Amino acid sequence: MGSKALSNAHGKGSRAVVLLSGGMDSCVCAALAVRDHQTAAVHVSYGQRTEQRERRSFESICDRLEIRDRLLVRNDALRSIGGSALTDSGIAVPESHAIGNNIPVTYVPFRNAHFLAVAVSWAEVLGAGQVYIGAVEPDSSGYPDCRPEYYRAFNEVVKTGTKEGSIRVVTPLIAMHKREIVTLGLELGAPFDLTWSCYQSEKRACGVCDSCALRLRAFRDAGAEDPIPYEVAAAR
Amino acid sequence: MGSKALSNAHGKGSRAVVLLSGGMDSCVCAALAVRDHQTAAVHVSYGQRTEQRERRSFESICDRLEIRDRLLVRNDALRSIGGSALTDSGIAVPESHAIGNNIPVTYVPFRNAHFLAVAVSWAEVLGAGQVYIGAVEPDSSGYPDCRPEYYRAFNEVVKTGTKEGSIRVVTPLIAMHKREIVTLGLELGAPFDLTWSCYQSEKRACGVCDSCALRLRAFRDAGAEDPIPYEVAAAR
Repeated sequence: MGSKALSNAHGKGSRAVVLLSGGMDSCVCAALAVRDHQTAAVHVSYGQRTEQRERRSFESICDRLEIRDRLLVRNDALRSIGGSALTDSGIAVPESHAIGNNIPVTYVPFRNAHFLAVAVSWAEVLGAGQVYIGAVEPDSSGYPDCRPEYYRAFNEVVKTGTKEGSIRVVTPLIAMHKREIVTLGLELGAPFDLTWSCYQSEKRACGVCDSCALRLRAFRDAGAEDPIPYEVAAAR
Repeated sequence: MGSKALSNAHGKGSRAVVLLSGGMDSCVCAALAVRDHQTAAVHVSYGQRTEQRERRSFESICDRLEIRDRLLVRNDALRSIGGSALTDSGIAVPESHAIGNNIPVTYVPFRNAHFLAVAVSWAEVLGAGQVYIGAVEPDSSGYPDCRPEYYRAFNEVVKTGTKEGSIRVVTPLIAMHKREIVTLGLELGAPFDLTWSCYQSEKRACGVCDSCALRLRAFRDAGAEDPIPYEVAAAR
């Protein structure tokens, strides 16, 4: 950890909970939370193809950002329910040409509500005032639960459904283009080298799934080098 | 199953998912869903004190109501997070005198959002148009996530956060007094004998916790007999 801005010192007044999948967006989101709050991080494994690799990223990003308060949760429901290429091995993960066409098969039905429920419950017990989530609308896969109107609505649920009604879900990246997220992450010293985005592989990022394609384009457009290795040599 | 109205025939056009804890309210709610829809039922265990007993009630109510599509889910998050007498053995379950005072210690932080997330995800995959939940506001324990404004807000989340945006969360009991729920359940032939409400015991309902007290009063006020046995002889 080079950057002083990223110290997760307990002297900070306000507390926050960040949802940290281990991907590039949530990593930048966690770096932002750590800059401004005493931050706790939560990770949800839900039977997605790359869950072990993502959990490893979560732990190492927390180490680097000095996040001590961590919650690792298993969600069995999403795997049992299926209906997505990420949780059902019978549905193939598409290659990048699918970007831009409607809602892709990697959409996990109503997934972010599961994640937010965990983060808000924990925030309520910790006394944290904010829940950070790295949802992104532009240049993204077109998931309905990554749009600002979804988070506006969710905040009403939090307001009406918690004891104090004072927790806010914040989405600092939601209007940013992926290349801007890369630039912001580099400014903050976010540990991109520890992140995992690939939907398909746990060993080496495939370079061709939707998620790899979006990430690679983001780094290229930002004029930066993606520090992780890829299976497809041409990917970079 | 005596009542023809309660046959869960697959000939019915519309599908519904019901959240069925195994308590009296969710049992009546399930009977209503079965009357009007081809119904699937979901049950969430979350490390609450009486989880095994509640799961047994779920299964036997489904058997009686002829609900074949069942989803049993484990939620680890709520137990890990704690903060409630229902999930934390270090916090005692209060006796009934606590009813009416603010939000009680049996409140599980933001619990119903976890349950609704599961039910809505499943409804989306099944193509069900409605999610039934037996939340009740009057005569209840004063949980924030049992109020109509919470469900109005949640429906906005469902509208903005799902593929089609057409699933509705419905709360047919929300404005009813507990005694009215008993009366309705008796009319529908809801299997009260199979339900479990006690927060504390798995063997024989204690008769003194908040939940037992509310239930006993409901049957008394409806002029009906609660078919389950109680530990405290005076309870009935």
